[in-house]
Amino acid sequence: MDNIKFENGALYILDQTLLPNEEKYIKMNNLKDCYDAIKLLQVRGAPLIGIFAAYSLALFHGNNIEKSKDYLDSARPTAVNLSWATQRILKAHKEGKNLIDEAAAIREEDRKMCRKISEYGLSLLKDGNGILTHCNAGELATSKYGTGLGPIILGHEMGYNFRVFSDETRPLLQGARLTSYELEKHGIDVTLICDSAASLVMKKGLIDAVLVGCDRIAANGDTANKIGTNSVAVLAKYYGIPFYVLGPYSTVDFSAETGSDIIIEERDSQEIKTLYFEKPVALSETKCFNPAFDVTDSSLITAIITDKGIAYPPYKKSLKELLL
Amino acid sequence: MDNIKFENGALYILDQTLLPNEEKYIKMNNLKDCYDAIKLLQVRGAPLIGIFAAYSLALFHGNNIEKSKDYLDSARPTAVNLSWATQRILKAHKEGKNLIDEAAAIREEDRKMCRKISEYGLSLLKDGNGILTHCNAGELATSKYGTGLGPIILGHEMGYNFRVFSDETRPLLQGARLTSYELEKHGIDVTLICDSAASLVMKKGLIDAVLVGCDRIAANGDTANKIGTNSVAVLAKYYGIPFYVLGPYSTVDFSAETGSDIIIEERDSQEIKTLYFEKPVALSETKCFNPAFDVTDSSLITAIITDKGIAYPPYKKSLKELLL
Repeated sequence: MDNIKFENGALYILDQTLLPNEEKYIKMNNLKDCYDAIKLLQVRGAPLIGIFAAYSLALFHGNNIEKSKDYLDSARPTAVNLSWATQRILKAHKEGKNLIDEAAAIREEDRKMCRKISEYGLSLLKDGNGILTHCNAGELATSKYGTGLGPIILGHEMGYNFRVFSDETRPLLQGARLTSYELEKHGIDVTLICDSAASLVMKKGLIDAVLVGCDRIAANGDTANKIGTNSVAVLAKYYGIPFYVLGPYSTVDFSAETGSDIIIEERDSQEIKTLYFEKPVALSETKCFNPAFDVTDSSLITAIITDKGIAYPPYKKSLKELLL
Repeated sequence: MDNIKFENGALYILDQTLLPNEEKYIKMNNLKDCYDAIKLLQVRGAPLIGIFAAYSLALFHGNNIEKSKDYLDSARPTAVNLSWATQRILKAHKEGKNLIDEAAAIREEDRKMCRKISEYGLSLLKDGNGILTHCNAGELATSKYGTGLGPIILGHEMGYNFRVFSDETRPLLQGARLTSYELEKHGIDVTLICDSAASLVMKKGLIDAVLVGCDRIAANGDTANKIGTNSVAVLAKYYGIPFYVLGPYSTVDFSAETGSDIIIEERDSQEIKTLYFEKPVALSETKCFNPAFDVTDSSLITAIITDKGIAYPPYKKSLKELLL
């Protein structure tokens, strides 16, 4: 899947804001187009932003490359990959190198890194495995393969068959809009579920491994990732399912001793209160599993409170005794 | 909160399909109005449907009460409470009783039952407790108090202060549209969260107890309830938080030995793929907690897979060793 294309000297992006309803490539005509593409999230995912920014600066730096770099960097000030990549283009410029070659090198390095992660991940999976994933750590966000989805996409290329379950990932629905879309495009068997159905598919024995990406890993291994990742990890532990975190080694932040050193961004409540997705959030052909209810094992229930009184375990006895 | 009103011989319903955006009472003028109100889910919740159907038949049975009963029952054929309540009105009619009094008696019995459940539940809570709930088992679905929300509403009446967290409950968002709405109306401190944030509020120590309703309880205590309830139960177990199921004793189905005897309804995938809620799904004044990320404890992670290799616990050592 080409999320950006460089063809005959021209740069194109797949507008990710239109997914999954429309696959539209947009040609970048100047630096402002590139700035807007990053700002408006038409291009997203830390590695991809870096690659795209490198091509952007290489193509459209004009007479003042330092000013152009600052302008581009300001599109998403907190995206470390962005300024890291533009800095490399700036350095290459000062060294008189070919800038398009440098951008291509950045892309190639990312591809190799994702490939490595995917190979390592794949070594832990078996053909036919059921895999649960949360949010989107796939090809749309990187050069190829992705991180969390890397072993699935690489394995599929090599002839493995996986059954993937994708959490929709409220509130912004990256699992519905991006993960299920990109796996579907690859021809990989994917089923979209609400986040709350994850424990049901685990309980039914459909999941052999959980694969997720990561935003930051503390020195002790505590890992920050999209809200809900921790829930999936607790559920996986309970059901005895391996839970794998995948990401570039650069994600490990040794300055954070444990997870409590990681500050969590809190976002606008409108994302919960209003559902501003006017169009469908998944492809019409996407397979879904939408159970209305689930069954909670009695071993998880502290007490059952009825109008006849409170029953405690073992319920087989206590529920009947309420009527005595 | 009056979800139905009987005033000066006239029957009114609060149209629940318009919540939380509009609070509109509709007068019932004939049996067709009542049929439509049930059919279109303007009146919902098993106990409330029973009460409403009783008043409907008592008021508008016309010359042929048996035919009117069948007509009303057909509005939601699977709702057991509906035909149970209309049967009682039919019996009262044959016995020459006052039918409005019989409907009022059904309502009063439900109120007493909910009150009992609420009192039992409240006996397990303490002032100041943080409570997590999933879906809606509240006053909107019953005569008063509700089941899962009963102890909260009764406790509030008695001067308890609770901090309630309401799961939004995808896909149909009963937690956003109904639970956070009705608790807000009562002046109870409620915070709306995405289902996937439940483990984060537990981990932060904000939850002292989980309260949920139930659709069916097997003889061994296994409990069927809205999808996601089981996830919440596993999380509560992991964080050492009591998990309480609340419902009328009649919810216990002794013919189902365990939860595996309970068949789970699967619903239309459009509920996941398309978000057809055109208007806001929560009151604008509803407090929300919308963290973008969470942190997964390293103890829950089987392996961390990077481009430098695979790290296994203890990560403090293994993450560094990847670079050796």
